[in-house]
Amino acid sequence: DAIVAAIAQALAGPQRLAGRHAIVTAGPTHEAIDPVRYLANRSSGKQGYAVAGALAALGCRVTLVSGPVALPTPAGCDRVDVVSARDMAAAVESALPADIAVMVAAVADWRVEAAGAKLKKKGAPPALTLVENPDILAGIAAPGPRRPRLVVGFAAETETTREHAQAKRVRKNADWIVANDVSGDVFGGDANLVHLVTGSGVEDWPPLPKAEVARRLAARIADAL
Amino acid sequence: DAIVAAIAQALAGPQRLAGRHAIVTAGPTHEAIDPVRYLANRSSGKQGYAVAGALAALGCRVTLVSGPVALPTPAGCDRVDVVSARDMAAAVESALPADIAVMVAAVADWRVEAAGAKLKKKGAPPALTLVENPDILAGIAAPGPRRPRLVVGFAAETETTREHAQAKRVRKNADWIVANDVSGDVFGGDANLVHLVTGSGVEDWPPLPKAEVARRLAARIADAL
Repeated sequence: DAIVAAIAQALAGPQRLAGRHAIVTAGPTHEAIDPVRYLANRSSGKQGYAVAGALAALGCRVTLVSGPVALPTPAGCDRVDVVSARDMAAAVESALPADIAVMVAAVADWRVEAAGAKLKKKGAPPALTLVENPDILAGIAAPGPRRPRLVVGFAAETETTREHAQAKRVRKNADWIVANDVSGDVFGGDANLVHLVTGSGVEDWPPLPKAEVARRLAARIADAL
Repeated sequence: DAIVAAIAQALAGPQRLAGRHAIVTAGPTHEAIDPVRYLANRSSGKQGYAVAGALAALGCRVTLVSGPVALPTPAGCDRVDVVSARDMAAAVESALPADIAVMVAAVADWRVEAAGAKLKKKGAPPALTLVENPDILAGIAAPGPRRPRLVVGFAAETETTREHAQAKRVRKNADWIVANDVSGDVFGGDANLVHLVTGSGVEDWPPLPKAEVARRLAARIADAL
């Protein structure tokens, strides 16, 4: 077993993030409307799970805070399952302190004030009053002693991807934003088209498998720390 | 292979529904709000898939119209995958004529007028204006030459289950309603507590695995035809 582990480690390359702790969020959140209905984001969780696995492969301790997905936990990650955005915010808070935060989850911006009993279909449809969810990325990126050294956000955009992502980086106080162009059919698929927005500018990455986006991002994170 | 098939058929019991065609709906529907957000119902699809499989085991030809779920297709069923309630209604319509319709899917009662681009989180949350979806059960149960001989609806209820289900049976013109008590933790689980509401009254079934609920229902359907 020691031999197998040594071989696995040698194959995995240098443990450049040994001794570091990363919090990675992944998947969608589900916001209950009533006991049977919910509001959700489309997200397979594949990109976030790939990032968590790529960081773990560099020797990083990884806490993977996951919304409802049908994926196996990547090797070397501690997984915390959550459903709603508020649950996810609480789980991220509990996982601090961390050196690295990579917020890949597609968190619902809004939730509905949930009803205790199932809404009945009578007369006119009910109006859904939305209230804003906690902003997990802005929360963890806010200045303070608990802020991870490197905070990376993901942004799914269907239009003017680069500009929105640059504005988001500044607004959220994130170090980097990985902007996903979701105007194609990225959801659930294995390929991704991203731009890496840092303080120095915007890098356009070629279309890559999600696993390769994750490996490149993990390598960049290791360079930056 | 002929021997294996003969043994399988012998083990399956008499093919009491040979020559019949059943349409079974299962799973949730997802109603797009914009390219990344949707409104959904909680439904694993397990009960509907079990019903489809139990009917097929009695020799019935089964068209399984399925919302987004992570389940394998039961043996002997033709599966049609759909996403929204309108897709499901169209797929059910296309599958007619049928002798039997068992509408198990948790169809979203409402949809949102979908936006082409991702809604932005700026200022006050947007108001979601809901519009009513087609009523698939009432549609297939309406009197007419294309009405299946036996139309069975499912009703998920958190309160006063039996009374709501009896009213639903009459309102939808369904022959039977299987009323699910979902006040416990039935979603995604393997057990179910149901009441069978027919024109003769209400039968309270004991708590049973979903597969056994399906077998009993399929046997009752075979008795009724």
